[in-house]
Amino acid sequence: MLNFVNDYSEGACPEVLRALVESNMEQLPGYGKDRYTRSAAERIARACGKPDAQVFFISGGTQTNQIVISTLLKQYQGVVAASTGHVNMHEAGAIEAVDHKVLTIPEVDGKLPAPALREFLETFWADANHEQMVFPGMVYISWPTEYGTLYSKAELTELHDICQQYEIPLYIDGARLGYGLVAPGTDVTLEDIANLADVFYIGGTKVGALCGEAVVFPKADAPEYFGTLIKRRGGLLAKGRLLGVQFDALFTDGLYTRISHQAIDTAEIIRKALREKDYEFFIDSPTNQTFVVIENSRMEVLRQQVNFDFWERKDADHTVIRFATSWATRTADAQALAELL
Amino acid sequence: MLNFVNDYSEGACPEVLRALVESNMEQLPGYGKDRYTRSAAERIARACGKPDAQVFFISGGTQTNQIVISTLLKQYQGVVAASTGHVNMHEAGAIEAVDHKVLTIPEVDGKLPAPALREFLETFWADANHEQMVFPGMVYISWPTEYGTLYSKAELTELHDICQQYEIPLYIDGARLGYGLVAPGTDVTLEDIANLADVFYIGGTKVGALCGEAVVFPKADAPEYFGTLIKRRGGLLAKGRLLGVQFDALFTDGLYTRISHQAIDTAEIIRKALREKDYEFFIDSPTNQTFVVIENSRMEVLRQQVNFDFWERKDADHTVIRFATSWATRTADAQALAELL
Amino acid sequence: MLNFVNDYSEGACPEVLRALVESNMEQLPGYGKDRYTRSAAERIARACGKPDAQVFFISGGTQTNQIVISTLLKQYQGVVAASTGHVNMHEAGAIEAVDHKVLTIPEVDGKLPAPALREFLETFWADANHEQMVFPGMVYISWPTEYGTLYSKAELTELHDICQQYEIPLYIDGARLGYGLVAPGTDVTLEDIANLADVFYIGGTKVGALCGEAVVFPKADAPEYFGTLIKRRGGLLAKGRLLGVQFDALFTDGLYTRISHQAIDTAEIIRKALREKDYEFFIDSPTNQTFVVIENSRMEVLRQQVNFDFWERKDADHTVIRFATSWATRTADAQALAELL
Amino acid sequence: MLNFVNDYSEGACPEVLRALVESNMEQLPGYGKDRYTRSAAERIARACGKPDAQVFFISGGTQTNQIVISTLLKQYQGVVAASTGHVNMHEAGAIEAVDHKVLTIPEVDGKLPAPALREFLETFWADANHEQMVFPGMVYISWPTEYGTLYSKAELTELHDICQQYEIPLYIDGARLGYGLVAPGTDVTLEDIANLADVFYIGGTKVGALCGEAVVFPKADAPEYFGTLIKRRGGLLAKGRLLGVQFDALFTDGLYTRISHQAIDTAEIIRKALREKDYEFFIDSPTNQTFVVIENSRMEVLRQQVNFDFWERKDADHTVIRFATSWATRTADAQALAELL
Repeated sequence: MLNFVNDYSEGACPEVLRALVESNMEQLPGYGKDRYTRSAAERIARACGKPDAQVFFISGGTQTNQIVISTLLKQYQGVVAASTGHVNMHEAGAIEAVDHKVLTIPEVDGKLPAPALREFLETFWADANHEQMVFPGMVYISWPTEYGTLYSKAELTELHDICQQYEIPLYIDGARLGYGLVAPGTDVTLEDIANLADVFYIGGTKVGALCGEAVVFPKADAPEYFGTLIKRRGGLLAKGRLLGVQFDALFTDGLYTRISHQAIDTAEIIRKALREKDYEFFIDSPTNQTFVVIENSRMEVLRQQVNFDFWERKDADHTVIRFATSWATRTADAQALAELL
Repeated sequence: MLNFVNDYSEGACPEVLRALVESNMEQLPGYGKDRYTRSAAERIARACGKPDAQVFFISGGTQTNQIVISTLLKQYQGVVAASTGHVNMHEAGAIEAVDHKVLTIPEVDGKLPAPALREFLETFWADANHEQMVFPGMVYISWPTEYGTLYSKAELTELHDICQQYEIPLYIDGARLGYGLVAPGTDVTLEDIANLADVFYIGGTKVGALCGEAVVFPKADAPEYFGTLIKRRGGLLAKGRLLGVQFDALFTDGLYTRISHQAIDTAEIIRKALREKDYEFFIDSPTNQTFVVIENSRMEVLRQQVNFDFWERKDADHTVIRFATSWATRTADAQALAELL
Repeated sequence: MLNFVNDYSEGACPEVLRALVESNMEQLPGYGKDRYTRSAAERIARACGKPDAQVFFISGGTQTNQIVISTLLKQYQGVVAASTGHVNMHEAGAIEAVDHKVLTIPEVDGKLPAPALREFLETFWADANHEQMVFPGMVYISWPTEYGTLYSKAELTELHDICQQYEIPLYIDGARLGYGLVAPGTDVTLEDIANLADVFYIGGTKVGALCGEAVVFPKADAPEYFGTLIKRRGGLLAKGRLLGVQFDALFTDGLYTRISHQAIDTAEIIRKALREKDYEFFIDSPTNQTFVVIENSRMEVLRQQVNFDFWERKDADHTVIRFATSWATRTADAQALAELL
Repeated sequence: MLNFVNDYSEGACPEVLRALVESNMEQLPGYGKDRYTRSAAERIARACGKPDAQVFFISGGTQTNQIVISTLLKQYQGVVAASTGHVNMHEAGAIEAVDHKVLTIPEVDGKLPAPALREFLETFWADANHEQMVFPGMVYISWPTEYGTLYSKAELTELHDICQQYEIPLYIDGARLGYGLVAPGTDVTLEDIANLADVFYIGGTKVGALCGEAVVFPKADAPEYFGTLIKRRGGLLAKGRLLGVQFDALFTDGLYTRISHQAIDTAEIIRKALREKDYEFFIDSPTNQTFVVIENSRMEVLRQQVNFDFWERKDADHTVIRFATSWATRTADAQALAELL
């Protein structure tokens, strides 16, 4: 059975696993005060071109979004996101559970369009009743998006400029950041992300780690006592080393982006086959997720040999499905899928 | 200056005020355990045709929505509402502040369309990922709606049936309930509301009272220790009599619906004039709110003599404005406005 | 039956009621933007000797505490209170419901002792693990306390100084403020309160109003968009006039303190009788609440003719009961009780 | 430098690490739907003597307490705990952050005394004002306690019986459960815990795992959609296997209790030395934590060679310190410490 169902089917990439094994019996302070965590934070800060950046590690993406959003927003504010934003759709209400509304704007290609954002903000402030409404207090995007698409540097800059104008932070969810950074055609670097976002996270869970996300405050303006705030939300691991050791490995010798290439290379093998066989793409994604329209009976046949993700019904006879690759996808598996398509 | 800006510009209707004055020096137990509150609850239950109904009094509408919704929903659920629903737009995030998401469905004539609701629920339960999403746990509508429109008995019944099928409560926000009950052409009675809603509230603030809303559980299935839950949200008045006395008066000898007629009669005077003068209605409302499209220069002239509510920009040259009437609107004022139009 | 069970048994004092009646049909803006609310705020600011103070009106005490505390605390902070503090004991968890811990210190005479507060703060900051604890972020006291006792000006000053030193606000709950201001022997004025507290509220519900408390920020440093924050907690009345008109009356010609005298005068009649008849006082209160130890069989006899409040069991044969007076207590009733004792 | 500062200084025990390494490249479903997680749950259920028990895995202890307590309590309830309870003191307000009060009872030997609990519950229900108070809705204890002490089977049974009588669940925090189960003199087995608790968790972080706690509902009455509730609090790992694989190893061939012995054996070496050298024990603990009173100058000398935990000041000249051992403590290190004492 070939497996393209998601990008978190395996454990850690070998170098990360080795780092865990090698450091295992070392006695280290708890709660992220160990040397690996410190080193990981420094390596990440340097990789971002922001040596003074503050970096924190949290075990999963939903928790990261929950903590970052709830600690940066003021009580009367909500977070603006595309209607398809992960925080809006697939986190079981985690943002509302910490008291904030997700203010949605219709997505285009999985992205939050800058003109729509600008209009939303203008309309809000022009509304005579806005003091009885939820104030837009932050903009959330993911890069890559839920649909695997990427904002260009120009698009990110435009969102950044709007946020600056309205004095609200731009937050980038980078659950799959590595796959965006090495995607063909992207003009965005990690340094760009660090320049354009007020806060962002570098995803580990989907890019080589067993668990863990690295939250970066490039301007070193994290909320006071951010560690306590993480603890209060149940997100502080006693053995903080588990996250520190993994990210220290991921940001040694460019491992993070190096392993990301495999996801893109295998995705390209699949997309090449799809194009050659005249499949209709649901959306044009350059990263590790490929969304394609498939005829239902064809899908049933494929299902015998391949695990993929059901995305949505297209019409009576067609379905949108997703093939996800990752750092762990074998080239041979991608080629095997290409032949089966 | 003529005033049609909203339906809460005056104090209490004379009979309600008199009841407050007459009972003022009576010594009564606190926290709603007084005889007026008990009597008001009984009168309301009888008026609903549900003598065993449980009735609670809360000082304002936002607080009522916040308490009812947060005590009826399970933690993993959200409340389904029309995109224009008051809980979604104009309560400053009060629902999210108590940890729940508002799941929105595009409105039609200010209403939540039953077919769209049905599709929303079907889609949710069919989604393989629904355990990571917010479950629809309650349906919220207002009657009349934010736009002054009314669901017919057939429409309410359809919503009720869908809720029954999915085993979730139907909650009706009746901030302006009185004005709906006496609107021309409505086929819905208070008894119908009590039969079709699992919980609803009868608005006092906008219909004759100084403050206060009456929450009705027609099936007497209020959450356990509902009074404690109100207290915990800061909604329990020490002098609960303030609400009890007012609602006791409002539900004596049909005062509540009797005073509601004046709002409709005066709104009809205005609408008749608008029709005669070929104004374009923004929406066709039979209750105390009238939404009309007005040419901007005409609006500026009118503004010299009339307070009305800005609703939204229609286009470069036109604006949607609202005239609101209430139990307190004088017939002469409505006639004066009719002439000015 | 004589009634001394609490201080919220009647409606409004006559002058307040008259103001409501006289302004009733005036058309006024909603949500506290009316001229009465503005006037009330100005009168209160002047009475506090702080003409620039910001004043807000909220319908009840629990809601006021909930809103003030949750908007002033940072997320990682809790509020320090005496173990007997109202916020700790009798608000159904309203502070925790808005996410904050009440950090308790054992009371002495119903008060929070300054030395214990100082030690608590010192210990917290000296604790190596304090980043995993709830930070003390505010000090809450009530004046008068739950037991009717009063902090002297020196005691308040000491608490104020400690708060200044630790850079946390001192919040005074003045649910019964009027009764403290006119109590025999107090050396504290409203101006002192305004000088020593960072935020406090002037209780209306128990001192002449139907409902309502006035929150005062003497330094005009209320949280941004405080009105929106009140709305979000369900505390903003559409007819904000209801609170504005009442407080405007209460702070015209010294009505607030004038009516407070009656509560003290009648309490003194009762206390004089208790002293003469050698009752044991449970606590020595100079305000409108009198706590006395009574032999159980004696209590049962008294209960036939008097409503009082059960406070707690003292021992097998004795009970602590409370007699509460208010602005509405008749001198004749106090004398009648004095004879029955 | 000898290290006895806490019980989470190392990574995972070798067998657990090996299981992670061996399963690393296996492709498994996410979110805890993998076969290791299923197997771990089954092994734990069997070890508890409750084959039908429901078992869930969460990454850390604070998050586990936060989720269990907030999903079992009703809104108007709080959790009863000893004043020294972890949830009360050292979780940065995580329980209040999810809206619930911790109702404290003074500890005795780090334990919640059954008679005090009984009196607390009786007093609450006898209080005429209890509807304005926080209802006791659950009892939280830890086993071992914060002080390393253990409730006997008789003590647990008494707490269980009180909870049964008041129809509230008994929740046992087993962050260090393994060390209690193998402590000398304990008469409590894992089966006893499963019989006497309504819900409990088996700590992994401090007993052999990199991270992770196993929540057990022995009566299989977990809240509906518990997985969604975990997700909503940010506690659901995409790679749920990380927890499943570890607990599957820990509950294979009795590994969990087997490794726990080392912590006790080494702690006994230390305690024997302390007794021989006439140290004063701060509290008599039979588990992996040893609290001892030490003369300050002696402490300073010791500090040169040993990491231990400062607990509290005893008096001007003495301090209470803690030595913690774990599954990873080397016998030689314990002996070295014994000689240094």
